[in-house]
Amino acid sequence: MSELRKDPIVDRWVIIATERGHRPSDFPVQPPGPNAGGASCPLCEGSELKTPPEVWSIRDDGSAPNTPGWQVRVVPNKFPALQIEGSVNRRGLGIFDLMDGVGAHEVIVEAPEHSWTYADGPAEKVELSLRAAQARLTDLYRDQRFRYAVIFRNYGPQAGASLDHPHSQIIAVPITPKRVKEELIASREYYARKERCIFCDVIQQEQLLGDRIVIDRDQYVALAPFASRFPFELIIYPKRHHHDFRSLDDAQRRGLAEIMHDCLRYIRTALGNPSYNFVVYTSPNTVVRRGKPNQWGTIDVDYHWHIEFLPRVTRIAGFEWGTDFYINPVAPEAATQYLREIMADEAQARQSEGALVHG
Amino acid sequence: MSELRKDPIVDRWVIIATERGHRPSDFPVQPPGPNAGGASCPLCEGSELKTPPEVWSIRDDGSAPNTPGWQVRVVPNKFPALQIEGSVNRRGLGIFDLMDGVGAHEVIVEAPEHSWTYADGPAEKVELSLRAAQARLTDLYRDQRFRYAVIFRNYGPQAGASLDHPHSQIIAVPITPKRVKEELIASREYYARKERCIFCDVIQQEQLLGDRIVIDRDQYVALAPFASRFPFELIIYPKRHHHDFRSLDDAQRRGLAEIMHDCLRYIRTALGNPSYNFVVYTSPNTVVRRGKPNQWGTIDVDYHWHIEFLPRVTRIAGFEWGTDFYINPVAPEAATQYLREIMADEAQARQSEGALVHG
Repeated sequence: MSELRKDPIVDRWVIIATERGHRPSDFPVQPPGPNAGGASCPLCEGSELKTPPEVWSIRDDGSAPNTPGWQVRVVPNKFPALQIEGSVNRRGLGIFDLMDGVGAHEVIVEAPEHSWTYADGPAEKVELSLRAAQARLTDLYRDQRFRYAVIFRNYGPQAGASLDHPHSQIIAVPITPKRVKEELIASREYYARKERCIFCDVIQQEQLLGDRIVIDRDQYVALAPFASRFPFELIIYPKRHHHDFRSLDDAQRRGLAEIMHDCLRYIRTALGNPSYNFVVYTSPNTVVRRGKPNQWGTIDVDYHWHIEFLPRVTRIAGFEWGTDFYINPVAPEAATQYLREIMADEAQARQSEGALVHG
Repeated sequence: MSELRKDPIVDRWVIIATERGHRPSDFPVQPPGPNAGGASCPLCEGSELKTPPEVWSIRDDGSAPNTPGWQVRVVPNKFPALQIEGSVNRRGLGIFDLMDGVGAHEVIVEAPEHSWTYADGPAEKVELSLRAAQARLTDLYRDQRFRYAVIFRNYGPQAGASLDHPHSQIIAVPITPKRVKEELIASREYYARKERCIFCDVIQQEQLLGDRIVIDRDQYVALAPFASRFPFELIIYPKRHHHDFRSLDDAQRRGLAEIMHDCLRYIRTALGNPSYNFVVYTSPNTVVRRGKPNQWGTIDVDYHWHIEFLPRVTRIAGFEWGTDFYINPVAPEAATQYLREIMADEAQARQSEGALVHG
């Protein structure tokens, strides 16, 4: 079983695979090449028996689990970083802190088609993946051992994807990860001081300034953050304050699918199908635990869920690793401007098509 | 001029290149291929006029600056992320914080030979690079605008190196970077509570446990940290407590060069010339500033300089970016064990060679 270990200096945990015998030659130093679809792909329709049994799916009426006939399918990761059974077993080792590598690691297989992407759409198809993520998050947060679950997508070799078949992942862990905790604490302190949500204030400030807003529509805003770490980094915020991704109703989920599909289509046009990661930031699990006061008692007013979208077009070097300080060669205003031009071109092309049809 | 911008939620700054007109097609999505040496390499001997004029060098007696005849040479980066002239101009923009992109970005050209590496040695040659880093850090910390300087090395395409010629870099910045500040604050809090240095305690704990110590000699210890984020991650600590890399005397610098050369030679044997980053963690600049109390008044007891060494053999994906939480497939104990076997093999080979010579 793997271990969760805490850095003795800063509040950062890592998952350590403690099985010995991993030889250094096992490491892929180069990103993997493209994988073919069909029988050789463990996530394609028809390969259902190559994955562990599904835990959730949307299926054609009458089709049996682990057979073809699904639109989206969630399965445990075949090579999980964490093990679902067992207790966390928190303990010390001298000055160090560790616990057993207990958690859940699931894969959302987002479409039966091997080469579908979010940018292809339609939004209805993206929505199925969001439904799966929401359902699995809701279920995993029933488990008191799990403090947080990370929902994320790796697309393309530069983003760390090892399979081309469209998929996202969820990892539920018995700690709140460092970066998430920093946001939670910062937003709690801000609320305590101002009685306002810091994310709501950022959205309002960005709307006032205007030059980093890519899309602003009824339910959501997509913007290039003021201090973007990477070129064409985007954040999608729901405009209505809410701390929890699980709260989405049908209309909100549909709106989110639409804005994600649109953003990824514009980014594809701008950058030529780049690798990217996206990550959902949401409330930690606030299920009450024995012997542990709930430190997130005001989470509903403090926090505001959102999705971070990170194209992987620049290289990360020692400076960034050593400092958590980034050099971004593209100002977010320039990225916004460029994406707006693409949106305008697309709208015009659509209009000309319309004129042609009516003409 | 570039801007330094602070994330409105967490205490993280980024450098934003605000010059417009960067087109997305400018990005290298793939790592660069190998660069040839000689006349086409801007860092090779004979190419001195292809870099900005040198600010420091070690030269054969009588050779003029910016001509051949050097062993190590420091030049400003030709495409600096920050500009050396001007004042920092701290200001707000609504709820956001920013300042001008003032700083220094220098390149230490570590050898005239295009394909030399630290693993090649000898230690005397590594020492020249350390002398350059120490001298430049000392000089840059005379500038009150600079709060911190990051000394780092990117080796190989996966580590973000864009030139093959052996070089390190120094970036001096008007803020203390997030990751560094976290260590400084954590070690200050630890000292305030225990009146002991947390790094000294970690070294002692690791010596007691023993299974992550790779090299333990008179002046330095090299160990695989308990909560390693990456396979074969190593930290080199000076055993004598000191907060400042600038303090190295000749013997200490020589000892550091030896242990770095040894570590990198073992890593090369273990992993087959992997890409890697190393980063020096040292005291921030504590020059007294008008109107700003020195928050690092107890730095000499709190902090302990060290060098972090990160082989780049695993891919970083959305999970890591989203959380600062890592999955490490190789336990640091297993990495230590493996490196010790390589050390033993090397010692034995040397002994057999010796026997052959004497036999």
